[in-house]
Amino acid sequence: MLTVALPKGELLKNSIRLLQSVGLDFSAFLDSGTRQLQIPDATGLAKGLLVRAQDVPVYVEYGQAQLGVVGYDVLREKQPQVAHLVDLQFGHCRMSVAVKASSSYRSPLDLLPHDRVASKYVNCAREYFHSLDLPVEIVPLYGSVELGPITGMSEAIVDLVSTGRTLRENGLVEIATLYESTARLIAHPLSYRLNTGNLSDLISKLREASTVNSNQSTVISNQS
Amino acid sequence: MLTVALPKGELLKNSIRLLQSVGLDFSAFLDSGTRQLQIPDATGLAKGLLVRAQDVPVYVEYGQAQLGVVGYDVLREKQPQVAHLVDLQFGHCRMSVAVKASSSYRSPLDLLPHDRVASKYVNCAREYFHSLDLPVEIVPLYGSVELGPITGMSEAIVDLVSTGRTLRENGLVEIATLYESTARLIAHPLSYRLNTGNLSDLISKLREASTVNSNQSTVISNQS
Repeated sequence: MLTVALPKGELLKNSIRLLQSVGLDFSAFLDSGTRQLQIPDATGLAKGLLVRAQDVPVYVEYGQAQLGVVGYDVLREKQPQVAHLVDLQFGHCRMSVAVKASSSYRSPLDLLPHDRVASKYVNCAREYFHSLDLPVEIVPLYGSVELGPITGMSEAIVDLVSTGRTLRENGLVEIATLYESTARLIAHPLSYRLNTGNLSDLISKLREASTVNSNQSTVISNQS
Repeated sequence: MLTVALPKGELLKNSIRLLQSVGLDFSAFLDSGTRQLQIPDATGLAKGLLVRAQDVPVYVEYGQAQLGVVGYDVLREKQPQVAHLVDLQFGHCRMSVAVKASSSYRSPLDLLPHDRVASKYVNCAREYFHSLDLPVEIVPLYGSVELGPITGMSEAIVDLVSTGRTLRENGLVEIATLYESTARLIAHPLSYRLNTGNLSDLISKLREASTVNSNQSTVISNQS
């Protein structure tokens, strides 16, 4: 049986909608009452696995799930050994450098050597400042990264920004973008190559569905 | 002004109760409506900082908080440069090795070389199996570690166990304990040494209060 790893949080609803459009129904994960982390699809052809976003590529890399949906930010940070298949065109956000609005810094190049940068994405942050040849100190945090500059622990942060509301509420401004991120379809490389359970057929359908969805949303945004 | 870093989650209520008993009131963090991560104490002498458990030692290490409350499990995993001051005698739990109840493994020594062990505590897990001279593969996960053995991705897990309910619900059994954990009071080493803001006085009161609390709970548990 095919297993699909789905990410808790922001990307879940759209992931489930996409899979529904190709005939796989994991909408039971959206019932607030359910504590189940594994559910079979109604067709009996596939199983859904509900895990933390960062854990999706782990289950796919080890082959416990043949397919998974995860943000590009996680793939970029963790560099897992998985096949990147389709840009699913939802979950748009960006990895940004932000500082206090009251700071004099208006570009990452304004940061001084040994300034501190707080982030949950330590590899992305390190790589970025390395590319600028700026020896800043990366402070790893697990949550509420915006507290870094507010408390004075760090001069800047590197974090995922969607609407920018959290930054605004905390008096922070973006001064650079590292990269744009969207949800991606990933696969276990060997299952993909061997076409286990006719995986390629399902992937084609998902590719098509995500293009249709993307065109629809373009039409909607053009009309609005 | 003194800043105290408090951990979101399991240890928050008891941490706030302890600080109340020495005159610092951060109970506003318990209002479900509040999104505030920083609040002043009513006395105006101290400020509370509400952060993820794993981030408490980071704020204390960098001196943004002079004091913090955090589980021994986090200190053991991250090895931050902070002063360990008081065992606060609440938040009792243990770091355990667990396997599927249906597994033939009844001791960690039954694990085979290259068996997989899933954990959020990769350093603790690695150190433990290294001490047993057992070259297992540690699989880092962020949440729902119990899915490791259930999906067949790992033969065992290393995870924090409190009541054992999550393990039982998922058909897992403990086969070894790495160590016991409780909440600890930690301090920024330099602030502690320089006695910034008469820190030692507050620490003495907290030490006393936690002993009283602990004796009371011993009396209660003896009576029950």
